[in-house]
Amino acid sequence: MSAQNPFDQKKAAILSEINSSQPDLSPKGSIDRLCLPIIKLINSHEDMVTTSSCSGRISVFAEGVKDYKGNVKVGGKGQGGKWLYVSHDSDKVRGWIDTLNTSDQEIISGTVEDNLIASDGSTRYLLYKYEPFILHVKCRNFEMASRLYNVAMACGFRESGIGSNNLVAVRINIKLDVPIGFVDDKEKLNLFVSPNYIQLLDKLTLTKFEENEKKMKELYVKIENQIINGNPIASLEAKKEQETKEERRERKRREGLERQRKAKDQKAAATD
Amino acid sequence: MSAQNPFDQKKAAILSEINSSQPDLSPKGSIDRLCLPIIKLINSHEDMVTTSSCSGRISVFAEGVKDYKGNVKVGGKGQGGKWLYVSHDSDKVRGWIDTLNTSDQEIISGTVEDNLIASDGSTRYLLYKYEPFILHVKCRNFEMASRLYNVAMACGFRESGIGSNNLVAVRINIKLDVPIGFVDDKEKLNLFVSPNYIQLLDKLTLTKFEENEKKMKELYVKIENQIINGNPIASLEAKKEQETKEERRERKRREGLERQRKAKDQKAAATD
Repeated sequence: MSAQNPFDQKKAAILSEINSSQPDLSPKGSIDRLCLPIIKLINSHEDMVTTSSCSGRISVFAEGVKDYKGNVKVGGKGQGGKWLYVSHDSDKVRGWIDTLNTSDQEIISGTVEDNLIASDGSTRYLLYKYEPFILHVKCRNFEMASRLYNVAMACGFRESGIGSNNLVAVRINIKLDVPIGFVDDKEKLNLFVSPNYIQLLDKLTLTKFEENEKKMKELYVKIENQIINGNPIASLEAKKEQETKEERRERKRREGLERQRKAKDQKAAATD
Repeated sequence: MSAQNPFDQKKAAILSEINSSQPDLSPKGSIDRLCLPIIKLINSHEDMVTTSSCSGRISVFAEGVKDYKGNVKVGGKGQGGKWLYVSHDSDKVRGWIDTLNTSDQEIISGTVEDNLIASDGSTRYLLYKYEPFILHVKCRNFEMASRLYNVAMACGFRESGIGSNNLVAVRINIKLDVPIGFVDDKEKLNLFVSPNYIQLLDKLTLTKFEENEKKMKELYVKIENQIINGNPIASLEAKKEQETKEERRERKRREGLERQRKAKDQKAAATD
């Protein structure tokens, strides 16, 4: 194997891990099915490699033991909280609550009692969440990171950003974050919303899954058109849209100098 | 006034706007009180200028008219939706619902009816949100943007990112995003949660306001210590923590070459 630069080494290592049959480092141990097309597309470009991804998920989280100020207790039982349910599959949204209603872990339906409103910060909430697609892409250089960032932003992934070492985070704001109950001192799960409200949340989560998948497909097409099969003019246009008045003036000045220089070079070449 | 580069021009224009008594371009027309210290701190550095901010807020949003697929109808009444309540002030969290319960706009308390669960995508939801502090800072160069980004990330603002033109977005994930009702075809607001549940949400929002303010203060201190009064060693340490194995090897190699070069220069200087 010939000597490679650090980016190529990292890319080769990541691709070999993706293509192996070993579980990866995520809790789930594998790449989400819906992420595979965009991961394959991005990795087909020699200046990009995907480092982590999540296709979007529903989760139900039980908070850990807290003190009266709401600070998580160190060493307490249930410290740090735990996920009671996680699924990346829209077919596994409806019915999640039945999987929690077991002999070990009974769910008590109820309402918000007055004493809960008056309680201190130690209440351990049950949180229902929908989190959208997120993708991290390491780029060979800042120019590549910038191109990917601009395409993602223009496609509605408005919480994207470039981090250290040309690592681009592609993020969108399609979320649900709903307190649906609490864990009592006997570790039982108490709901303070109705079964119908849970069904409504599940229905909303399904629309989030759809919206999210639609945005993922849009992003796929934009990356394919503007980066993989991209022409430099398109990326220059994108740049023009982003720049401020001062930057535009500065760019025009540079472009003018460049034209003058070229004209001079041509003249020099003609008279040589 | 002497000639300035584009960054200094932009910074001067922004500072003069901040210091004027004219309303700014935000819907509220002024900078949130809680943002003032950190904005002042950041703008005291010659290589940074704040371009927009929000100190965190509670909001209640009524979705606009949608078709059965959930797409927003163009030209429909209420198209695009509207904010029924927005406040950046934790003293104005409790009691928001009373401000909506007017003769013009009655709120109907209720539950989630079966027909709502079965309905198509056209339901116009009432959404209760808490959104945390967000800040945009334009930096003179990428090095400065990178330093600010690293400090923000290390301080728990894990959704931060660098955008185009060295604009850093400082973001944190402290959120609530809860469907609490819907707008019916007579434009009336129907809740499907109980008054006690709303009170509980308000209580949770107040803890979010507190947590958010605590994080803002932490960020202030970190920026002050590590950037404003910062020493280069601290920023080098932060860099070491972020880098990959390959990048570490590459840095070590560069540092080695640098040492050799210096040693050679000293030797040359000594023999000159």
